[in-house]
Amino acid sequence: MNQTFQDRLKIGGMLKGPRNKITDVPGVSVGHATLSKGEIQTGVTAILPHQGNLFQNKVIATSHVINGFGKTTGTIQMAELGTLETPIVLTNTLSVGTAYDSLVSYTLERNPEVGRTTGTVNPVIGECNDMYLNDIRKQAVKKEHVRKAVAAACKDFQEGSVGAGRGMICYSLKGGIGSSSRIIQLEHDKYTLGVLTLTNFGKLSDLSIDGRPIGSKLKEFIEAEEEKDRGSVMIIVATNLPVTDRQLKRICKRAVTGLSRTGTIIGNGSGEIVLGFSTAATIPHEKTSKPLTFPAIHEEDIDEAFRAIGEATEEAVLTSLFQATPVTGREGHERPTLTELLKKYPLL
Amino acid sequence: MNQTFQDRLKIGGMLKGPRNKITDVPGVSVGHATLSKGEIQTGVTAILPHQGNLFQNKVIATSHVINGFGKTTGTIQMAELGTLETPIVLTNTLSVGTAYDSLVSYTLERNPEVGRTTGTVNPVIGECNDMYLNDIRKQAVKKEHVRKAVAAACKDFQEGSVGAGRGMICYSLKGGIGSSSRIIQLEHDKYTLGVLTLTNFGKLSDLSIDGRPIGSKLKEFIEAEEEKDRGSVMIIVATNLPVTDRQLKRICKRAVTGLSRTGTIIGNGSGEIVLGFSTAATIPHEKTSKPLTFPAIHEEDIDEAFRAIGEATEEAVLTSLFQATPVTGREGHERPTLTELLKKYPLL
Amino acid sequence: MNQTFQDRLKIGGMLKGPRNKITDVPGVSVGHATLSKGEIQTGVTAILPHQGNLFQNKVIATSHVINGFGKTTGTIQMAELGTLETPIVLTNTLSVGTAYDSLVSYTLERNPEVGRTTGTVNPVIGECNDMYLNDIRKQAVKKEHVRKAVAAACKDFQEGSVGAGRGMICYSLKGGIGSSSRIIQLEHDKYTLGVLTLTNFGKLSDLSIDGRPIGSKLKEFIEAEEEKDRGSVMIIVATNLPVTDRQLKRICKRAVTGLSRTGTIIGNGSGEIVLGFSTAATIPHEKTSKPLTFPAIHEEDIDEAFRAIGEATEEAVLTSLFQATPVTGREGHERPTLTELLKKYPLL
Amino acid sequence: MNQTFQDRLKIGGMLKGPRNKITDVPGVSVGHATLSKGEIQTGVTAILPHQGNLFQNKVIATSHVINGFGKTTGTIQMAELGTLETPIVLTNTLSVGTAYDSLVSYTLERNPEVGRTTGTVNPVIGECNDMYLNDIRKQAVKKEHVRKAVAAACKDFQEGSVGAGRGMICYSLKGGIGSSSRIIQLEHDKYTLGVLTLTNFGKLSDLSIDGRPIGSKLKEFIEAEEEKDRGSVMIIVATNLPVTDRQLKRICKRAVTGLSRTGTIIGNGSGEIVLGFSTAATIPHEKTSKPLTFPAIHEEDIDEAFRAIGEATEEAVLTSLFQATPVTGREGHERPTLTELLKKYPLL
Repeated sequence: MNQTFQDRLKIGGMLKGPRNKITDVPGVSVGHATLSKGEIQTGVTAILPHQGNLFQNKVIATSHVINGFGKTTGTIQMAELGTLETPIVLTNTLSVGTAYDSLVSYTLERNPEVGRTTGTVNPVIGECNDMYLNDIRKQAVKKEHVRKAVAAACKDFQEGSVGAGRGMICYSLKGGIGSSSRIIQLEHDKYTLGVLTLTNFGKLSDLSIDGRPIGSKLKEFIEAEEEKDRGSVMIIVATNLPVTDRQLKRICKRAVTGLSRTGTIIGNGSGEIVLGFSTAATIPHEKTSKPLTFPAIHEEDIDEAFRAIGEATEEAVLTSLFQATPVTGREGHERPTLTELLKKYPLL
Repeated sequence: MNQTFQDRLKIGGMLKGPRNKITDVPGVSVGHATLSKGEIQTGVTAILPHQGNLFQNKVIATSHVINGFGKTTGTIQMAELGTLETPIVLTNTLSVGTAYDSLVSYTLERNPEVGRTTGTVNPVIGECNDMYLNDIRKQAVKKEHVRKAVAAACKDFQEGSVGAGRGMICYSLKGGIGSSSRIIQLEHDKYTLGVLTLTNFGKLSDLSIDGRPIGSKLKEFIEAEEEKDRGSVMIIVATNLPVTDRQLKRICKRAVTGLSRTGTIIGNGSGEIVLGFSTAATIPHEKTSKPLTFPAIHEEDIDEAFRAIGEATEEAVLTSLFQATPVTGREGHERPTLTELLKKYPLL
Repeated sequence: MNQTFQDRLKIGGMLKGPRNKITDVPGVSVGHATLSKGEIQTGVTAILPHQGNLFQNKVIATSHVINGFGKTTGTIQMAELGTLETPIVLTNTLSVGTAYDSLVSYTLERNPEVGRTTGTVNPVIGECNDMYLNDIRKQAVKKEHVRKAVAAACKDFQEGSVGAGRGMICYSLKGGIGSSSRIIQLEHDKYTLGVLTLTNFGKLSDLSIDGRPIGSKLKEFIEAEEEKDRGSVMIIVATNLPVTDRQLKRICKRAVTGLSRTGTIIGNGSGEIVLGFSTAATIPHEKTSKPLTFPAIHEEDIDEAFRAIGEATEEAVLTSLFQATPVTGREGHERPTLTELLKKYPLL
Repeated sequence: MNQTFQDRLKIGGMLKGPRNKITDVPGVSVGHATLSKGEIQTGVTAILPHQGNLFQNKVIATSHVINGFGKTTGTIQMAELGTLETPIVLTNTLSVGTAYDSLVSYTLERNPEVGRTTGTVNPVIGECNDMYLNDIRKQAVKKEHVRKAVAAACKDFQEGSVGAGRGMICYSLKGGIGSSSRIIQLEHDKYTLGVLTLTNFGKLSDLSIDGRPIGSKLKEFIEAEEEKDRGSVMIIVATNLPVTDRQLKRICKRAVTGLSRTGTIIGNGSGEIVLGFSTAATIPHEKTSKPLTFPAIHEEDIDEAFRAIGEATEEAVLTSLFQATPVTGREGHERPTLTELLKKYPLL
C-alpha cells in the first residue's frame, strides 16, 4: 500500500537495481534487531559488505562528515587506512558503547589471533538519537541485539520503523530505515551503487518530495509540533565500482545533493555522516609478499557515480518516510506517518 | 524585464536584505572589470569585506571545498589563521597568477612595511574556466583589470554577464554573477548574510528552479548541446553575524544545500569552493598587548544562518541565470539566456 | 630514585609548573583505576578539565590525529563544535565500548535532562593496545573502573605503570603514564600548559633521550626482542591560555615536535592522537540570550605555546619511561624499565 | 670542504641513494634559476617528476600542511584528484603569481588542447619569504626565470644558496636548498625515496644537529640577532614506491619527525608544507576505456618509508645549511654559514 505513493515518484533518471536497495550490490546484506516494548522503541541495524571474514578481508572504505554533531566511531582509522574490517552497526546514540563492545566480541570470536599475534579491531558504529519515541536513558540495547542484527543480515531486509529506525523521526514524521540503488553503466561494465539511510532529522515544513513542498502544505493541515532538530542521519553507501578510497570519498561527499533535495537545512543538532565502502577489491589483513593491485575507474568516469548517489540518497530518505509504520513510544509519543497523511491529504 | 520572471520566484521563507545582494552586509562592496572584445569575453570581480586597510584589519574568514577540482589560492593560510587580509578576487582559471600578482601590488602599495618589517600577504583568488565563450589561452586579464575591479567596488553592483561572469556558462545557459541576501533575526539582534556566486557549472537537463525541473523541459524544446561539465562555481559568503571561524565554516558548508536544490550533481570537472568572511570583528595585524575578545553566537542560534545560506545560495545561482545577457564569444560561441528561453517557452 | 635520572635531564629551556604535571593547569585533575592481577594488567585514567558539571559548562577543545591507526571516540563532535563535555578517559583498545557506556551513565546521572529535554552526550575515549602485558581479549575493564578513575581524580596523581598505563610498553621498555608542564609568560599574563601521555609505541633502537641515542646503545647490551610496533600514544593537552579552538588545534599539532625528539618514526601500527582543551572559558550548554564573548591571544603570541607543548610532550614521554615500574603480565611477559637499565648501564 | 663536516654526520641507519639527493628517484630532475645582483638575491627551483608530458601523464601526488602560514598553490586539486600535472616550482612568496603564470604558459605550449577541447591546468607552486636578504618587494622573478629553472632540470643539481634558496635563512644562518635520499628495501623490491627542502625557518638557539644542541652553543659565541621567525620550509618528497595517494600522504606526514629533530618548534610565522609524488604509476589525462590498475604496497610495508622520510628530511635540512655559501643582500644583510662557524668553533 505504501508502495502506491512511492510508485508514483520517480527520483532521477537512472536505472534502479532489482530490489532498489543497498543489497543490490553483490555480497552486501542487511539485518535488523528491533526492540519494541512500551517505552522502549529502538533497535539495531547491521550492514555487512560481504559474507566472509571482514577482519581478514577488509574492504576499501571511507567516511564523510556532513555535520559532525554525532558520535559515530571508527572513522579515524577508516580515514588513515582506507578500510573497513567490521560490519557497520547502526543504533541509538547512548548504545554506541554496547555496540562497540559487541563488535569487539564478534571479531574476537572469529579471529583468535586478535590481541595475541595481531592487533585489535576498529568497530564502526553509527547512531541517531531516538529519545522522542524511545526511552534512550534506559540503554535498552544489549550486546545480543547487535549480534542478532548481524546474524539476521539478508538481501530482502525490511525498511521503515525497524531495527535502528524503530524510534526515529524525520521531518517531524515517523522516520527510520530507507534504501535505494542505482545502476552505473560505464563503457567497461555495469556496476551498482546502493544507499541505506537511517533518518532522524528535519522539520516538517522543510520536507520536499521530488521538488514539491509537501511538508509546508501538510503543516497547514496538521498541527505538527515541530520538535527542535536533535536528530541525525546516517547514510551508508555500498558499491562494487572499482574505486580508490579517495574516489569513494568524492562519491560519498555527493550524498548531500540528494539529502538537500528532500528539503533539509542540515540543522545544528543533526549529525549527518556518510559511511561508504566498495566491494570491488578486498585487502588482506596479513602482509603480502608482493604489492597489491587495485583496479580503479578513470576520474572522468566518476560522474555517473555522483549522479547515482544523489538519486539513491534522495530516494532512500523518502523511502524511510513512505515505509514507516506508526509507533507509540515513550510517554505515549507518536508521530504521523507520511503514508497516512497522504491518504488523508492527497497532495502527491 | 528579467526581474519579471525572477519576481515570481520566492526561494525560501526568510526576509531578504534591501538590495537582495551580498552588499546588504554593512561595509561589503563589489566591483567588476569586464573584458568584452571578440574572442575575449572574460573579466574580474572583486569583493571587499570593508573599506579600510584589510591587511591591517583582517576579518574572520574560512573556506570550504565542495569539489576541489579548482585552483583557488589562499585557502591554506585562511584555514591556519582564520583570517582574510585581501579583497577576494574572482577571474578565469588561467588568470589566477595575474590576479595574485595584482593583489600583491595592491597590498604593497598600501602597506610599505610588507616585506620590510612585517611578513608577506596572502592573496585570495577564486576562478572558473570560461574557455567556451572566452579565448582563455590568451590570458587577456591584466593586473590593471584587477585593480579596476577593486576600485569599482560599490554597493549596487551589476549581476549577470559582467566581471568574472562575462564568459561563464551555467546549466548549459549563459551564467555569470548572481547574488542574494537574507536577514537573520536572533534574540539579541538582526544580522545579514549575503552570497555572491560566480556560476559556471551544470547541465541543462539538471536545472531545477524552485523545485521545478525546468531544465529537462527546456531541453525538449531546444537542442542544447550539453558541453561536458568543466566549470566551477565560486560561492562568496559575507555576514556581520558574530561567529568564530569554526562556526563560519559550519555555515559555509551549508551552501551546498542551496546549490543542490538548483539540480546539480556537483560533477567531477566542476570546482566548487565556498569562501566566507564575517565582518563582526576585525583582527589587528600588529600584536596587541592584551588578549583579543571575540563575540560569537551560541551554537544553538546557528540554524538561522544555516537556513539563510541555503536560501541565498540557491537564489544567487538562479539570479545569475536570470540576470545573464547574451554573449557571443570565441569562434562565435553563444549560449541561450534563461530569460529569452522562458519568454519563448513560458514554463514558470 | 627514578627521580635521580630524570633530574639530570633538562628538556628545553622553559619554566615548569610546580608539579611538572598536567594538573598544574588550574582546575585540572587526573585519576586512575589500576587492574593488576595475573594476566590482567590494565586500567583506566581519567582527565577532568574542571570540577564542575562538564556537560553544562563545556570547555573549548580540539583533537589532532598524528597517526589515525587508533580507535579514539568523540573527535568528530569535538571538531564540529569545538567543545568537550565529558572527562577524557583513557583505557585499553578493547575496552573503549565499556568506557563509552560508563561516561554515558556518568553524564545521565548528573544531568537528568539528557535524553529528555536536551540531546545526548559525546564521550571522549582514548586508547592504546596493551595486549603484550595484558590479556586484552578478556575485556577486564568494567564500567565501575571508569567511575573509580573519575572519582579518584586529584592534583598529585601517580605516573608510570598505573591506570591506563599499567600494561603499556614504550620503546620496547615498560611505558605508561607520564606528564609534564610549562609556564607560558606573555605580556598580559602567565599561563600554564600541561601534557599527559599514555605511551605505548616505538622500538628500543629508536629511543633518544635529550638528543642522545640511548636506545641503540642499550640495545647493544640487552637482547630486547623488538616487538612489532602495534601501540599508540595518547597525548592529552590542557592549558588555561585563552585560545580559540583553531588556535588550540595549532598548538596540539606541535606535540609531534616533542614526540619526534624522543626518536619515534611514528610507525604504521601506532595510533597517535592529541586531545586538547583550554579552561580559559566555558561554554554553557543552554542557549544564551546574548552572544558569547571569548578571549583569545593574538596569533603573534602563540609561539610560546608551541614551544611549551613540544617541551612538555617530550618530557612527558620520557617521564612515562622513568616512572614505570616492572609489571609481569600475560604469559609471564615482562619489559625492562628504563630506570633499571640505566642503573645497570649508566649511559646518562 | 663543506662535505667534510657533513661527512662526519650520519643521520639514521638506512642506506642512501648514490647521489644522496631527490634525483636518486628514477626520472626525477631538479633545476635552478638564481638571481643574484645587489639587493636582488632570490630565484626559482623546479622539480620534475619525469621527463615526459606531465599534463598528459600525471603522477600520484599529495600534500600535507604542517603549518599553513604559507601561500602554496595547487593543493586543493591535488587533494581532490590525487595527481600532479605540472613541475613543482619553488620561489619567493611574492613571486607565486608569476610562477603560476609561467607554469600556465609552459603547459599551454606543450598542450594545444588545453582551454580548447580539454580543461585547464593546476600549477603547483611552493614558496618561502626571503625578505631579509632579498628585496622581495621588487618581485624580481620573471616568467623566464621559471622557464629557465625547468629547462635546467638535471640529476646533479646544486644545493645551498641557489635557485629559490638564494635568499633564504634557516636557524638564523644562511639556508637554502638541501636534499637527501634513502633506499627502501622491501621483500618484493628496492625503492628510493628522496627529499628536497627549501629551508627558511627557525632560530639559531633551537638548531640541533644529530641530537647535539649546536645552535645554543654557537649562540654563545656569536651575537646572532635572532630575527623573528617569518620563514617557511618547503619539503618536496619523491619516491618510486608504489603507493596510493592516501599512503603517500601518510608518508608525507612523517616528514615532520626529521624536521623536528633539527630542533624547530614549527613557529607561527613559518609555513611548513610537504608536497609529495610517486612515480610508480602514471595517470593518463584522457579517459581510458577500461579501469586503471594501481600497484600499492601492503600497509604493513610502510614503516620503511616512514623511517626513510624522517631521515631524509632531517638530512636535507642540515645539508641546506652545510651547503649554503655566503650571500650579501638587501641593505647589506648577511647571515653566517654553518660551515664557516664550525670552522671557527669546532663543535662537531
